[in-house]
Amino acid sequence: MRIDILSAVPELLESPLNHSIIQRAKNKGIVDIQIHNIRDYTLNKHRKIDDYAFGFSAGMVMQIEPIDRLITHLKSEREYDEVIYTSPDGEVFDQKMANNLSLKNNLIILCGHYKGIDHRIREHLITKEISVGDFVLTGGELAACIFTDAIVRLIPGAMSDEQSALSDSFQDNLLAPPVYTRPAEYNGWRVPDILLSGNQRLIEEWEHEQAVERTQRLRPDLLKTTNK
Amino acid sequence: MRIDILSAVPELLESPLNHSIIQRAKNKGIVDIQIHNIRDYTLNKHRKIDDYAFGFSAGMVMQIEPIDRLITHLKSEREYDEVIYTSPDGEVFDQKMANNLSLKNNLIILCGHYKGIDHRIREHLITKEISVGDFVLTGGELAACIFTDAIVRLIPGAMSDEQSALSDSFQDNLLAPPVYTRPAEYNGWRVPDILLSGNQRLIEEWEHEQAVERTQRLRPDLLKTTNK
Repeated sequence: MRIDILSAVPELLESPLNHSIIQRAKNKGIVDIQIHNIRDYTLNKHRKIDDYAFGFSAGMVMQIEPIDRLITHLKSEREYDEVIYTSPDGEVFDQKMANNLSLKNNLIILCGHYKGIDHRIREHLITKEISVGDFVLTGGELAACIFTDAIVRLIPGAMSDEQSALSDSFQDNLLAPPVYTRPAEYNGWRVPDILLSGNQRLIEEWEHEQAVERTQRLRPDLLKTTNK
Repeated sequence: MRIDILSAVPELLESPLNHSIIQRAKNKGIVDIQIHNIRDYTLNKHRKIDDYAFGFSAGMVMQIEPIDRLITHLKSEREYDEVIYTSPDGEVFDQKMANNLSLKNNLIILCGHYKGIDHRIREHLITKEISVGDFVLTGGELAACIFTDAIVRLIPGAMSDEQSALSDSFQDNLLAPPVYTRPAEYNGWRVPDILLSGNQRLIEEWEHEQAVERTQRLRPDLLKTTNK
């Protein structure tokens, strides 16, 4: 899988995409992540890629030309399954979407910044708008990192212990059960006795009950979600 | 405002917290962000902070001792309004929560990693669990960056143009209207004539209509949300 991330502030993306599971997946050749600086595609000699909005709104808007040139360049080299824009207007990202996108071959993710991007980019160049959630961020870079992290860890071979991914929250519409590790007692706080019993069947039953109880209490909306 | 972020992989946090609005807010003294490596608080000579889960689950669990030592150390120096854990079990983060948290003085954000953290930490040390969304990430670091970005940009003085923040999506439960910048025509695609008219009243009416229309079409759920 290849993911091209287009940003006006590519230095923001450095550390999240160069450590942990993403770094290991890159090293194994499971994913190729290319970060592009949109400024490299402007014809403006000051490398300026934004300008004042038409109308009377405050804030700067990212211009269409450098983004069109960059996307056109990438599309001339390979076919992309989706050209994604990180936007609060988009479909809200969830595990189901991460599962679907993890099956694609080539993705472009365009990060907005400043007040937004010229709307013609969204009308003519973007195929899918995705929102990371109902809040405002300085730019789309953190959203792009989140999408990349959630997608890449689902690609077979990315995680060292695939069993571990399967039991994560959301994969079965249930929150994960509580986990504990040593010491069995700390500060007077004890691990539940059942977990120390060594009885695998009883422990697995307990874990399932806990997962269901926590989901009912904390996120009952997840139980109403059928697998789309 | 002070935000202390506790992580097993602090290097992941470097670039997002050292650029753009967060960096400017730090430089202006508006926010003090301290990143702590949980490994610095283990008594284990190999700096190990995780161990196998009790029971038969795959994956490693972060231990209570180093996290307790770190939080206890921080609390001995100042009072914290919240000790936050980034968890899919938590209340889903939104702009309302960002607004509320931006009024606090001192926050701790604990990033989970691996399979999770010993549940006793959540029962005894955490005051608020927040989820960034219904998807699984490698760790809580990206969620912590998102919370920090969304919160810090709301602190007065953090943004260079406060008018710009007020007209962002979600602040009034409406998506933002489309924005355009020069050139007025590109590749045959034209900016709407109204925006070139210079008539401020008509343009503002058009922008409001667009915001309402886009919200009704793309995110009707936002219109049902009353201001909690």
